[in-house]
Amino acid sequence: MTSTVITGIGELTTNDDELGTLTDAALVIDGDRVVWAGPAADAPEADERFDAAGRAVLPGWVDSHTHLVFAGDRTAEFAARMAGQSYQAGGIAVTVEATRAATDEELAANLRKHIAEAAAQGTTCMETKTGYGLTVAEELRAAKIAAEADEVTFLGAHLVPPGEDADTYADLVRGEMLDAVAPHVGWCDVFCEQGAFDADQSRRILVAAKERGLGLRVHGNQLGPGPGVQLAVELGAASVDHCTYLAESDVDALAGSDTVATLLPACDLSTRQPLPDARALIEAGAAVALASNCNPGSSYTSSMAFCVATAVLQMRMTIEEAVRAATWGGARALRRETGDGAVGVLRPGARADVHVLDAPSTTWLAYRPGVPLTHAVWRKGARVG
Amino acid sequence: MTSTVITGIGELTTNDDELGTLTDAALVIDGDRVVWAGPAADAPEADERFDAAGRAVLPGWVDSHTHLVFAGDRTAEFAARMAGQSYQAGGIAVTVEATRAATDEELAANLRKHIAEAAAQGTTCMETKTGYGLTVAEELRAAKIAAEADEVTFLGAHLVPPGEDADTYADLVRGEMLDAVAPHVGWCDVFCEQGAFDADQSRRILVAAKERGLGLRVHGNQLGPGPGVQLAVELGAASVDHCTYLAESDVDALAGSDTVATLLPACDLSTRQPLPDARALIEAGAAVALASNCNPGSSYTSSMAFCVATAVLQMRMTIEEAVRAATWGGARALRRETGDGAVGVLRPGARADVHVLDAPSTTWLAYRPGVPLTHAVWRKGARVG
Ligand SMILES: [Zn+2]
Ligand SMILES: [Zn+2]
Repeated sequence: MTSTVITGIGELTTNDDELGTLTDAALVIDGDRVVWAGPAADAPEADERFDAAGRAVLPGWVDSHTHLVFAGDRTAEFAARMAGQSYQAGGIAVTVEATRAATDEELAANLRKHIAEAAAQGTTCMETKTGYGLTVAEELRAAKIAAEADEVTFLGAHLVPPGEDADTYADLVRGEMLDAVAPHVGWCDVFCEQGAFDADQSRRILVAAKERGLGLRVHGNQLGPGPGVQLAVELGAASVDHCTYLAESDVDALAGSDTVATLLPACDLSTRQPLPDARALIEAGAAVALASNCNPGSSYTSSMAFCVATAVLQMRMTIEEAVRAATWGGARALRRETGDGAVGVLRPGARADVHVLDAPSTTWLAYRPGVPLTHAVWRKGARVG
Repeated sequence: MTSTVITGIGELTTNDDELGTLTDAALVIDGDRVVWAGPAADAPEADERFDAAGRAVLPGWVDSHTHLVFAGDRTAEFAARMAGQSYQAGGIAVTVEATRAATDEELAANLRKHIAEAAAQGTTCMETKTGYGLTVAEELRAAKIAAEADEVTFLGAHLVPPGEDADTYADLVRGEMLDAVAPHVGWCDVFCEQGAFDADQSRRILVAAKERGLGLRVHGNQLGPGPGVQLAVELGAASVDHCTYLAESDVDALAGSDTVATLLPACDLSTRQPLPDARALIEAGAAVALASNCNPGSSYTSSMAFCVATAVLQMRMTIEEAVRAATWGGARALRRETGDGAVGVLRPGARADVHVLDAPSTTWLAYRPGVPLTHAVWRKGARVG
């Protein structure tokens, strides 16, 4: 295994309480782990040397919410929505049909393409979900294909298949479908929203998943006020995602819990929803993550930098808060922020997921929105961008 | 000179009334000109061949508003603003001081770096301004250095230098300063805004510039309602830029004029201003351009794609309107949209400024915000990205 010292770091964001944010720093990686971080003057020797030349270095983005086992395209639906036309073109069902029609190889290639595209932009840890299969066989197939991602979530409860009864389908999801899929995934997620699954259906599915040892996630409070946040907190979900419409009681519940509020601002912009109230969450003490929600329907960006810029420019998160939410926050939402091989942090023992910016500080992510600022990326110690 | 046929174009945006937007198209460039555009099946032979493989092709971005003859950095000021601190750190005056202290070589290198950075993102025609010199000698120096850009604008009237009298400084600008600078620039611009130059001062400067044969531009209606738009229309300015605060009478005046309304949404976001009402302008029949306003203070992005995405996602411009505003609109704002060597259009005789997207259609610029989508760029017939 080869060790590399990254030196000349103008600003090193570690997300480690003791190390903090360093200037004139260095970082040493060995194999797939970080082995040292500190002042450049004290850096140990290594086999190879990478001069950051004053650039900012931070942990790779942890994108804790994507839907990338899919086929097909919804460009026309997006364009129609932007033109103010109510035309919906079938929404998720269009993707379900295209996904079912695709071969395993096509789906795997599409997922790999998106993982690589994200890595080139600094994303080094990605969760992805099933949810465009919606039958036992198709959800199982999606879960196996999704193994290419760092974390895999079962989202059989993405929507009620057209023409089916919601209770009957929810029973299928928590029974036969979960039996088939559970061995292949780490997480179970439910779209708990008016028009998808109600609180009772969602609870039954999530309880069944918990009994099988899966971690829990919830899509909630996206399209209006709803029970998603309270349910997530009640069941000890790692994360509740969207949080676009929060009551004060939702903010309080999150603040008093270990459930991360995962905000998806690119999705809110792409669907012309309001942006979530990040400040209320932060000021109440809730843990906040930022993720892309990359999917072909409601949010087809893989740019975590865009999410960070939006959070700073339009959601009044500070740079430090937004960058932390897109790294440490995502890791916390996946329960990967501590221990050996932790992601979203740069400290000895963490996974060597490193993002070098073409910028002297992370502030440029919001100061220069849209400008491609990724200079170099390591994932598990290997250069990927 | 070498000719190149770009074939396999999935979607070709020409901005030409007769050619329109083509699918399955080809484009031929020869030297620094477009010589042919049409259906792929009819394309003539050329020395070289570039297969767009189904990608979208459009004219290079025309960024008609930047301030890139500068030195220094205002990252800390931006971060403080985003953190809600009122701390202003001197604003433009900080950049004036740093610019005056820089050598010609430093200023030229910084400008070239930003032009190259923008070209790598598809910007093939750029205007830039003086305005961080504010003395006769320094404005003259800036104008000469700015010649690297496609269009150069004299903005001696950027702000009243601290401690000077506004009328006295305005007289210097329209007299000795204009005499010195006019031979080196095509345009004169004035920051007509409360705290900068009032309508009378602005008018006197612009009239003097017009008498010397310069085209006119105005910074107006950025920070609040004001006389900028009406003055621009009255004097036949090519463009009035910002237009964040418009009265109905301003919209009507623009609609009945040849003055382009140039919108700078990245600046509005970076200064936490509202976004301009593009729909009112478009529906009234005004010509609209989108530009970056790239400068170290109020808007330090060079990403025209970010401006287009913001216009679509948040200003209710359609994809077609936004893309046209960032190409044809910018060209129109610089009076370069027609004739031999026109920019912002792809038709025989136009300048060979070509942008190939890593996307099947321009819709992806808003469908995938923040994702770097530039695949290849030609400027004046030469590959630059
Ligand atoms: Zn989702
Ligand atoms: Zn300006």
